[in-house]
Amino acid sequence: MFCVTPYRWVFIYEKGYQSTDTAVSSVFTKMKGVGYTNVNGQERVWDVADYVFPPQGDSSFVVMTNYIITEGQAMGKCPEVRLFCPSLLFPFLLRSLCFRWNTRGHMTGICVNTTKTCEVLAWCPVENDHNIPDPPLLMSAENYTLFIKNSITFPIFDVTRSNLVEGVDANFIRTCLYDPVTDPLCPIFRLGDIVKLSGFSFEVIARVGGAIALVIDWTCNLDLDITHCKPKYTFHARASVGYNFRFAKHYMEDKIQKRTLLKVFGIRLDIIVQSLARKFDIIPTLTAIGSGVGIFGVATVVCDLVLLYLLPKREYYKNMKFNYLIKDQMYHPSFR
Amino acid sequence: MFCVTPYRWVFIYEKGYQSTDTAVSSVFTKMKGVGYTNVNGQERVWDVADYVFPPQGDSSFVVMTNYIITEGQAMGKCPEVRLFCPSLLFPFLLRSLCFRWNTRGHMTGICVNTTKTCEVLAWCPVENDHNIPDPPLLMSAENYTLFIKNSITFPIFDVTRSNLVEGVDANFIRTCLYDPVTDPLCPIFRLGDIVKLSGFSFEVIARVGGAIALVIDWTCNLDLDITHCKPKYTFHARASVGYNFRFAKHYMEDKIQKRTLLKVFGIRLDIIVQSLARKFDIIPTLTAIGSGVGIFGVATVVCDLVLLYLLPKREYYKNMKFNYLIKDQMYHPSFR
Amino acid sequence: MFCVTPYRWVFIYEKGYQSTDTAVSSVFTKMKGVGYTNVNGQERVWDVADYVFPPQGDSSFVVMTNYIITEGQAMGKCPEVRLFCPSLLFPFLLRSLCFRWNTRGHMTGICVNTTKTCEVLAWCPVENDHNIPDPPLLMSAENYTLFIKNSITFPIFDVTRSNLVEGVDANFIRTCLYDPVTDPLCPIFRLGDIVKLSGFSFEVIARVGGAIALVIDWTCNLDLDITHCKPKYTFHARASVGYNFRFAKHYMEDKIQKRTLLKVFGIRLDIIVQSLARKFDIIPTLTAIGSGVGIFGVATVVCDLVLLYLLPKREYYKNMKFNYLIKDQMYHPSFR
Repeated sequence: MFCVTPYRWVFIYEKGYQSTDTAVSSVFTKMKGVGYTNVNGQERVWDVADYVFPPQGDSSFVVMTNYIITEGQAMGKCPEVRLFCPSLLFPFLLRSLCFRWNTRGHMTGICVNTTKTCEVLAWCPVENDHNIPDPPLLMSAENYTLFIKNSITFPIFDVTRSNLVEGVDANFIRTCLYDPVTDPLCPIFRLGDIVKLSGFSFEVIARVGGAIALVIDWTCNLDLDITHCKPKYTFHARASVGYNFRFAKHYMEDKIQKRTLLKVFGIRLDIIVQSLARKFDIIPTLTAIGSGVGIFGVATVVCDLVLLYLLPKREYYKNMKFNYLIKDQMYHPSFR
Repeated sequence: MFCVTPYRWVFIYEKGYQSTDTAVSSVFTKMKGVGYTNVNGQERVWDVADYVFPPQGDSSFVVMTNYIITEGQAMGKCPEVRLFCPSLLFPFLLRSLCFRWNTRGHMTGICVNTTKTCEVLAWCPVENDHNIPDPPLLMSAENYTLFIKNSITFPIFDVTRSNLVEGVDANFIRTCLYDPVTDPLCPIFRLGDIVKLSGFSFEVIARVGGAIALVIDWTCNLDLDITHCKPKYTFHARASVGYNFRFAKHYMEDKIQKRTLLKVFGIRLDIIVQSLARKFDIIPTLTAIGSGVGIFGVATVVCDLVLLYLLPKREYYKNMKFNYLIKDQMYHPSFR
Repeated sequence: MFCVTPYRWVFIYEKGYQSTDTAVSSVFTKMKGVGYTNVNGQERVWDVADYVFPPQGDSSFVVMTNYIITEGQAMGKCPEVRLFCPSLLFPFLLRSLCFRWNTRGHMTGICVNTTKTCEVLAWCPVENDHNIPDPPLLMSAENYTLFIKNSITFPIFDVTRSNLVEGVDANFIRTCLYDPVTDPLCPIFRLGDIVKLSGFSFEVIARVGGAIALVIDWTCNLDLDITHCKPKYTFHARASVGYNFRFAKHYMEDKIQKRTLLKVFGIRLDIIVQSLARKFDIIPTLTAIGSGVGIFGVATVVCDLVLLYLLPKREYYKNMKFNYLIKDQMYHPSFR
């Protein structure tokens, strides 16, 4: 009887009698909530059109939580912020040598005396991103909510499901909030909760940025009722903290092209859909039986299957027999 | 002889003698066409840079078909549009209680008498999106065209194909228009046709938005001539209707930062490439034979394969034998 | 003994004793470098916020290398650039017939005498993209650098790796530059090198645009030490040259909505992560043995495995035996 257990393992636990399919899925997202900042007495609010990049509701997007703003930049010549002239550091140099350094502008070769830094042709004034605002300017982002609409189709089995499953209707959505224990099917997530469940600290990630994967897992046994095919949400920190990018808003002032430069720190969210459906299928069943026959001979396998699947009260019998057989093998003479 | 048919099924219909590969693919898209609106006597046109989000020609993008525009928004205090003061609804309240409501702005606590709504610090005037324009403002989007350039590579078989297959050259593209029956290989699609073939009504989806998957299916048998490896386009509605997002264009007026807010309703198109190439390979062939031998014994399988694949006139013989065997099985004593 | 080799092939070369897993991955990108243009004596620089689309550091983005700029467009009526009036080409026509042509604007029906072209309601003046600047305006893009941060997780084996592997630390990154031979693990790439390694000519692709796939390949045998699991970067030209899109920057001038239209030619980079991890697993081992037993009988396979894997000095023995067996088969009577 030795070796029957691995065979049964393939058949029962690896579900060798079912064929599998992965889904084609679509994801839509919508953030809600308003941020508020009061910098130097200047109040302003930040709505969705201000803090979500890109705005289309894709499965991957960034929520701005902190920023360094440089207003009124125009093309011109001005001193760099932290790029000190080599001639000041090394006084034996005759010329300023403000050349060939990879910066945010094009070196003019001139050393500006007042700042002791090189002059550049650039968007002026140049950004000074030495200090990242702490605490983050948009800590209020913690209370933003994210609504996810996800539908999947298993093409082989021709089954379509949405994350708005039975019971998750318009009424429920109006008031619910995702909670891994009490409300695991609500498709509305608080940003602070997402961050906490991924293992990050909100204050840290909001300040310097970071990336989180929100995984929607659809593992469905389609031999059961379709209502058992439900999404499961999990949250994962991706890489280490630190995520930012630069973004410019252009405008015209007195016939001069200007821009507002934002260095955006934020939470990059990627909604990832993982799916695996299984359903009884005669082909893999016969193949699995075939492999079994190859190893153990016809008689053992057929008897085994008859006992396990065809006799009445098979659920009860299966458990009994299986436990018994394991014990049987452990005490079998060939194991001693 | 019973059980030979499922074995042969694996071998012939599931193509157990071929190995498979999925492709790495790249997709470029380009919309063409101009929309025209005449709102309150103000004529304007909408070109590609106005109605496609994002503009880069990605495989996933949105074509704007309807919008609610709020012009000249600036940061300030103004009454909300539909958020009535609680003190007016419940006269026994002494204070206005315009607090803590999740809206598009930051509540100031003041109730504005003229509008009977709460005052907010927000982008003012606040958007009023109660009525969605009907008919959609950009019904002309129906006649926009979409050009798709798709190339795929099967890395294992080292085969590269493009959707501009044999016969689909620069001349053909200049005049052709995709039609599932008469022109199934033309890579230029009318937006109205895409919507119709996906099962949506254009007027409905253009008004409230919606999402469509355009699937390019490359199922190729590389044992045949490469020219048989052609794309097949299908169109699928994704989830239910209703898709919109907000988008802001910023500008400066009299030293004040302003923006034009657009609530965009549109058609989100996702170009999805599905691919599966098959080619004869000795390894899966031997494995498939091995499994067959496990079930049915060497003699049956080898004779079977010799008859089916090695004898001359095998195509003719295969059909004959196969039909005969099916009949044979059906009338075999063991089935009676 | 014939047929043992294909079986062993499955087992050893196809690694039939290992189970496999593909990774969930995340990719962040950051471009660095400044472009410089001098058009008609007007100097300007282009920084990251100007030349990367979209700005968020996604795995797919476009680096602008050439452009056609149309400044100060406003909604209005003006003559088309190259759309000559039909009545001038065919003088027997009485009316101008400037209708129903698919252009960048809405035909008014009027023929403009000075230009001999049809008048359109459009963003005026209309773009003239007949001549693509040559050499490309931003040839300096060749020296931009791309930093890639990629982390992967094999969920089944619970293994997480980053492309900043052992030895690739903050110090190393500050100075290194990717080179396929001398520095294959440095995650900083010069744009010119990427283009060259993909087989394109930088001058050509910079002028008319094109697309390149940067593939990060993680093929890992997790039975070995984890430090052997390293990324391998390869570069592939995608489709033929030619990639452009239109992009508008909006602004307000004297209460009139205007825009600057850019026809952007550039390099579209797609970072693609391919991954395959393998690890010893009892289930596929037994299945592979089972299939082997089906074909060759128990004795052959078991002896074979014992000799190959269980005896001491098995590495040495394996090579010897394997070579011997191949020779043995080649000179075996049944092959003569």
